[in-house]
Amino acid sequence: MGNKKLGRQSVALATPPSVAGYASVVGKKEGEGPLATTFDLIQQDDTFGEKSWEKAESTMQKLALSAALDKAGLSASNLDYILAGDLLNQCIGTGFAVRGQNVPFYGLYGACSTMAESLSVGAMLLDGGFGTHAACMTSSHFCSAERQYRTPLEYGGQRTPTAQWTVTGSGCVILSSEGAGPYVTHVTTGKIVDKGIKDANNMGAAMAPAAYETLLAHFQDTGRRPSDYDLILTGDLGQLGKEIVLDLLHRDGLEVPNLEDCGVLIYDLEGQDVHCGGSGCGCSAVVLTGLLLNGMKSGRWKRLLFCGTGALLSPTSTQQGESIPCICHAVAFSTQK
Amino acid sequence: MGNKKLGRQSVALATPPSVAGYASVVGKKEGEGPLATTFDLIQQDDTFGEKSWEKAESTMQKLALSAALDKAGLSASNLDYILAGDLLNQCIGTGFAVRGQNVPFYGLYGACSTMAESLSVGAMLLDGGFGTHAACMTSSHFCSAERQYRTPLEYGGQRTPTAQWTVTGSGCVILSSEGAGPYVTHVTTGKIVDKGIKDANNMGAAMAPAAYETLLAHFQDTGRRPSDYDLILTGDLGQLGKEIVLDLLHRDGLEVPNLEDCGVLIYDLEGQDVHCGGSGCGCSAVVLTGLLLNGMKSGRWKRLLFCGTGALLSPTSTQQGESIPCICHAVAFSTQK
Repeated sequence: MGNKKLGRQSVALATPPSVAGYASVVGKKEGEGPLATTFDLIQQDDTFGEKSWEKAESTMQKLALSAALDKAGLSASNLDYILAGDLLNQCIGTGFAVRGQNVPFYGLYGACSTMAESLSVGAMLLDGGFGTHAACMTSSHFCSAERQYRTPLEYGGQRTPTAQWTVTGSGCVILSSEGAGPYVTHVTTGKIVDKGIKDANNMGAAMAPAAYETLLAHFQDTGRRPSDYDLILTGDLGQLGKEIVLDLLHRDGLEVPNLEDCGVLIYDLEGQDVHCGGSGCGCSAVVLTGLLLNGMKSGRWKRLLFCGTGALLSPTSTQQGESIPCICHAVAFSTQK
Repeated sequence: MGNKKLGRQSVALATPPSVAGYASVVGKKEGEGPLATTFDLIQQDDTFGEKSWEKAESTMQKLALSAALDKAGLSASNLDYILAGDLLNQCIGTGFAVRGQNVPFYGLYGACSTMAESLSVGAMLLDGGFGTHAACMTSSHFCSAERQYRTPLEYGGQRTPTAQWTVTGSGCVILSSEGAGPYVTHVTTGKIVDKGIKDANNMGAAMAPAAYETLLAHFQDTGRRPSDYDLILTGDLGQLGKEIVLDLLHRDGLEVPNLEDCGVLIYDLEGQDVHCGGSGCGCSAVVLTGLLLNGMKSGRWKRLLFCGTGALLSPTSTQQGESIPCICHAVAFSTQK
């Protein structure tokens, strides 16, 4: 069969998979932010009725999957694959959410790029003829992330000015090999980029070069320009990371006024005391499955480039003095095939 | 394009990808075991010259990738994808190994099923026309795993009779869309199976039902029988887990005398004091990239079914009283397309 590769990192899907359903589930703080009206479910109790934050995170994923399947008019038995992952050690948020679904499953680890990674792999599996339906999913939870990556919440540790706030949320997209769109038309797979940033409280600066390089690769591989998109979304660079990526693009003569960042959009940066903005796998996932896909469905936007960014560090690698390897995967959506 | 699905969980590859190169890198203990002559590199110093076990694990992956590329006559710039993961929190063994390779990368998390998962996804991406070369890779390290999952090695904690020994090793397979084989002909994607086992020192018993269900799905979906394979390999069930899976198959009237387990093969169970056998992502990875692919290349075996098994628990999930969700992915190899 024909090679669908464009350049070094991109592919054009021959039969672009369609978004059959999608859903977003968030916690209280996200439900008090500027995107509140775009979410399917806002839970006031961040435990989601569970006895631990890790179990709460699994419950969020189960709720997002169930709601997305409902909106697609499908059941789990229609799914050929679930592609999912999260930030918790050994991705237990996902493992325990997928348990009991009785669906073939591939676990992914892309840190906060996981929503884009799951969509990338899912779209290629469907386009390749390996199934007709795939659920692409991820989550993060402020409390489980803080406990694991930083310090117990009870310490009340002070946050640095460059810190971001881990989103409590889960997003799920059901892709189908047939449907009325929006469609996934292109995928640009990221390479790991590490410019030597070692401050685990400055993820935006660490991830911005990965976003920049994937954007350049996407434009070069596909021959598209930034203006070919109504909106270009980076994952969760936050305010500082967004400024860095725009600055890097500017140095190449690329002005991208239509670039927004999910980590900036999801909170009121001033009013909600989140410093540089949102982060976590759930950040870009719930902005995609709320604001963005709603906007495509309503005709507000015709073409979006969704660029999930992830920082592939761990507390151990930071303690061992390592810098932060980062990645960014880009997924192009269009209302037309 | 045509749907390549067979039944609920399997696919037949239309243009089976070929194994262009493969390599195994192991530590001292594995090099003292019965498969010693099958490995490409045996390192006497388990630090691999690094200052931490986690960095040693990354170095192992880099060595395995480099050796596999050499044997394939390729360089990293020929790779369309690296698909890899490991057991460490946030998969840092992989992240830091892939950093600097300058290759599009998807991180996977399938615990000890990762070698089979990476081959599954890699084979489908190539067969789907999304590239021509993919590196499929994983690793585990006894010392990094013990520290993270159990207790500091310095405690000298006693091991239970059902415990397995985490393999220090990394395996890498380079798949190519063209070549002389062996070929990946079928993939059966696992579902999560959890029969309620809560003993994190009895992984074989926890994972055996997942292996059993994937084997049944594979035979049902493809219409093949166990005797259609020269050898059926489970990942790292160990002695007890292997007995359980054979017993489960026996109850269905399926006798599978050609089933072996990578966790049983890799050590001298009596002489090397490893209790139930080997485990860890590296276990099935180095048996595949040593004994198994060597045996296919030499004409000893024509058809193999490689079933990677993984336990998707974490220390946190165990502490919270959870049972162990498990998964098994099966990949069929053949010397004929």
